[in-house]
Amino acid sequence: MEQPQQPQQTKKANKKNKKPTKQQNSATEDAVKKTAEALENVTVGEAGDDVSQEFYGNLPMHQSQSKEGPTYTEIRDLFDKKYLDKDVWIRGRLHRSRSKGKLCFIIIRSRQYLLQVVLSVGDKVSPNMLKFAAAITKESIIDVFGTIKSTPSLVEGCCPDNIEMHLQKVFVVSASAPVLPLQIEDAMRPEDDETLSRVNQDTRLDNRYIDLRTPVNQSIYRVEHGIVHFFMEYLDKNGFTNIHTPKMISAASEGGANVFKVSYFNGSAFLAQSPQLYKQMAIAADFDRVYTVGAVFRAEDSNTHRHLTEFVGLDLEVAFKNHYHEVVDLIADMFVHMFKGLQRQYATDIETICKQYKAEPFKFLEPRQVTLVLGPYFVCLLPASLRLEFSEGIKMLREAGWEVGDYEDLSTPAEKFLGKLVKEKYDTDFYILDKFPLAIRPFYTMPDPHNKNYSNSYDFFMRGEEIMSGAQRIHEPEFLTERAKAHNIDISTIKSYIDSFRYGCPPHAGGGIGLERVAMLFLGLDNIRKTSMFPRDPKRLTP
Amino acid sequence: MEQPQQPQQTKKANKKNKKPTKQQNSATEDAVKKTAEALENVTVGEAGDDVSQEFYGNLPMHQSQSKEGPTYTEIRDLFDKKYLDKDVWIRGRLHRSRSKGKLCFIIIRSRQYLLQVVLSVGDKVSPNMLKFAAAITKESIIDVFGTIKSTPSLVEGCCPDNIEMHLQKVFVVSASAPVLPLQIEDAMRPEDDETLSRVNQDTRLDNRYIDLRTPVNQSIYRVEHGIVHFFMEYLDKNGFTNIHTPKMISAASEGGANVFKVSYFNGSAFLAQSPQLYKQMAIAADFDRVYTVGAVFRAEDSNTHRHLTEFVGLDLEVAFKNHYHEVVDLIADMFVHMFKGLQRQYATDIETICKQYKAEPFKFLEPRQVTLVLGPYFVCLLPASLRLEFSEGIKMLREAGWEVGDYEDLSTPAEKFLGKLVKEKYDTDFYILDKFPLAIRPFYTMPDPHNKNYSNSYDFFMRGEEIMSGAQRIHEPEFLTERAKAHNIDISTIKSYIDSFRYGCPPHAGGGIGLERVAMLFLGLDNIRKTSMFPRDPKRLTP
Repeated sequence: MEQPQQPQQTKKANKKNKKPTKQQNSATEDAVKKTAEALENVTVGEAGDDVSQEFYGNLPMHQSQSKEGPTYTEIRDLFDKKYLDKDVWIRGRLHRSRSKGKLCFIIIRSRQYLLQVVLSVGDKVSPNMLKFAAAITKESIIDVFGTIKSTPSLVEGCCPDNIEMHLQKVFVVSASAPVLPLQIEDAMRPEDDETLSRVNQDTRLDNRYIDLRTPVNQSIYRVEHGIVHFFMEYLDKNGFTNIHTPKMISAASEGGANVFKVSYFNGSAFLAQSPQLYKQMAIAADFDRVYTVGAVFRAEDSNTHRHLTEFVGLDLEVAFKNHYHEVVDLIADMFVHMFKGLQRQYATDIETICKQYKAEPFKFLEPRQVTLVLGPYFVCLLPASLRLEFSEGIKMLREAGWEVGDYEDLSTPAEKFLGKLVKEKYDTDFYILDKFPLAIRPFYTMPDPHNKNYSNSYDFFMRGEEIMSGAQRIHEPEFLTERAKAHNIDISTIKSYIDSFRYGCPPHAGGGIGLERVAMLFLGLDNIRKTSMFPRDPKRLTP
Repeated sequence: MEQPQQPQQTKKANKKNKKPTKQQNSATEDAVKKTAEALENVTVGEAGDDVSQEFYGNLPMHQSQSKEGPTYTEIRDLFDKKYLDKDVWIRGRLHRSRSKGKLCFIIIRSRQYLLQVVLSVGDKVSPNMLKFAAAITKESIIDVFGTIKSTPSLVEGCCPDNIEMHLQKVFVVSASAPVLPLQIEDAMRPEDDETLSRVNQDTRLDNRYIDLRTPVNQSIYRVEHGIVHFFMEYLDKNGFTNIHTPKMISAASEGGANVFKVSYFNGSAFLAQSPQLYKQMAIAADFDRVYTVGAVFRAEDSNTHRHLTEFVGLDLEVAFKNHYHEVVDLIADMFVHMFKGLQRQYATDIETICKQYKAEPFKFLEPRQVTLVLGPYFVCLLPASLRLEFSEGIKMLREAGWEVGDYEDLSTPAEKFLGKLVKEKYDTDFYILDKFPLAIRPFYTMPDPHNKNYSNSYDFFMRGEEIMSGAQRIHEPEFLTERAKAHNIDISTIKSYIDSFRYGCPPHAGGGIGLERVAMLFLGLDNIRKTSMFPRDPKRLTP
């Protein structure tokens, strides 16, 4: 069996750790001193005294000294019985440890998997080795080598919990400072557990590289990976082209409000609030069906549970033939594909998240398969996602006692309440509100041809919160100009937008989805900062 | 057969088109006038005179008036013989038309497909209808209905070229202004065709929504879609998590040069020059293998064929076990997967592009399958991509007569020349230069453990140009501080970066790939503005 990089003598390592570095701030200096002291307390015997001398220690800094090295096994693979009574190397984090006389129990962690490792003073483990192991700081990256054994009883809090490692070697690959800004175990505690300490959101976010180590955070970002994956998979299969649109633009897209300004060489630029203009240009350029996944910027001073100043937009735009509902149905079908994929492939992650952050499972209507027999029979899939007209939504709210205007935008509480009413009536957390009043939508929204107060526009909702806004766009330059003027927009600022429709453009519709909102609402979380890895809001630009 | 939206009387449409709009600039006004005049010349007879009256005209603005409508066929589907002698509806662009007595030939275009449509005055086509059709402006979106017929001889310049449509109905869905800023046919001409007019790059980029309609541009962005697809597919299969990193950051990442400044509420922010810090935090947070696809910003005043101020980064970061070459091999293998996938699935697109922009096919070494018989035999795939050490590259250049220093960075011409030497010797356009001199790499680069002048860093090259830069990163905070000081970096500006390694971090390596460069060099194009849909450089922020 290979050995990892040659370990340094523990004493040497201690001396190196003690060397102070002038530029450190005092908190860090303290942490380093404490590590050094902790390691100093380990008494290392002379060669010959210590039977285990070669089997533990601090490894020198990993510089890829040699390609030779052990083959490592992942904790997640140990569920396989073939490892029983076998010797394996594992690299992971020291989650916690405790020693009791001649025994030391270490829990080693790798993502959501936790394995108990047992050191027992004897032939292979010297008292010094035990002392060394017991002094390794929490969160250090360690290499352990030993035999996998089944345990007489289940090991509480471990996963797998029916095996443990009987340790023969232990090396520190990367030591953690002993004082952690937050305890992983506190950060892992269920939100409704009021008895033990938990970690507040700012502490989590300030120390995100530690906070993200919790199994729940690992799962949240795997689910988010899944959302993007299913979004792209569905669209790839349906003839879309994945495009990339510029984030730095020369003019503020929708009238200049809520836009970040950038110094651009001797002039200035703005950060795009949406890729819409560029998606539409791609449609005018015959790409037919496009999507783009990328950063979107909003300079809104909104400090709410669901606003970020930078988020990931999943945007799409589609040329349609007869009616914009072709696009609405396609997007709804994409979401159903996504929800089904997530519930199928990420069931374990969703379960892990639910244990810490309780939530009802996400409900949606699935397409029913309808077989029509008309001459030679054919099978037809009806998109079954619920689509209500805005006016029906208003009616439902009024019947429930809310006072809402016919052509006014819904407040956030009204939206949430309508979500509840819809859930009660139709048993779905996912639905579409169609035909919004024209007056409350952007100037480029196509009016309803049959009622001038409404428009060919829609919002998609999850658990009563908007996750996508979209519309059929006006593709006729004269009419677009007319509508922009009606919105008091200075035509000169949107000239290039209008011009892009002068040389023929197919009718088209699309929408922009907020990734973090979809993740938050699918998982039933209460704050968008839980689904943005490094969130940005008016008060937070770090880390 | 359904009819599209009820057509307006052509005369009415003319009148509507004549209505001037005050806010238009003069160029546009001219264009509108010309359209109006062109349509004015069409004499429309009284009802009853015109047998075709209901079969042509300008459709009203498409507002999704009705869900009823024809089923459309795509030109690309007409290669199927089942459409012969069948009637179909097609929506596409009028590519060009010419009339000759009682005949009119229209070429209708949809992406790279072009179909000839024939109008012949007779029972179904009145003289007025022919006049109307002949006057439709180039690039207008039209609906045509007719019978697909095989042609006695091949139709030059069409695809499919052995069929045509005998037209019965024609409607304009979205009219183009008659004067185009560039002619699609000029934009489609091979670069080496010196006899006929072509379109210069700025005209193309200024009118990108027209320029992108050419078959070659359609193909370029499909290939780019493929690059991202194969990048993600390979990494998804290999246990990576797709993450999203913030573009707005609080401090300039690498010392503050070449960074765009953003006004952020009452303070300021910077645009990230790379997602590296965040990828590394994800590694420190146990994500193990991560990638991210997103905008990267460089405020360099470089006006070259290969620099953009905003491009799409395909970035990845990997925790490895024994040696950073585990990561180099993985990335090389990913590229081979990508190249093979592109050559397999995008052969037609690559061919289309090559017809306009001549290039040698891209060459790379494929992994050889080596079977080792050792006791029970096993099959082992050796990654066969060429990896040379920097010092070997220097030696090759010197032997070819170049004067280059041992520890100096290679100039762009030297890189290109080395690419030629490598191609001659190893027959590959793709190779890796490993072990760069430490002095010319960023402060966070891990030094070579065996020679202090070199480092564990690498560049990947395609056709002699760098497309990825990467390294093993320093994961030890004290040493990172020491190296930053050696580079005269103010430690206070990178405190949070250094701190993220204080709580244990596995050894890791990664790299950042420029999407547009990969596309440019894979296709053998001469300018990165050909592979950026809406390029940004110091002089261009529009469209």
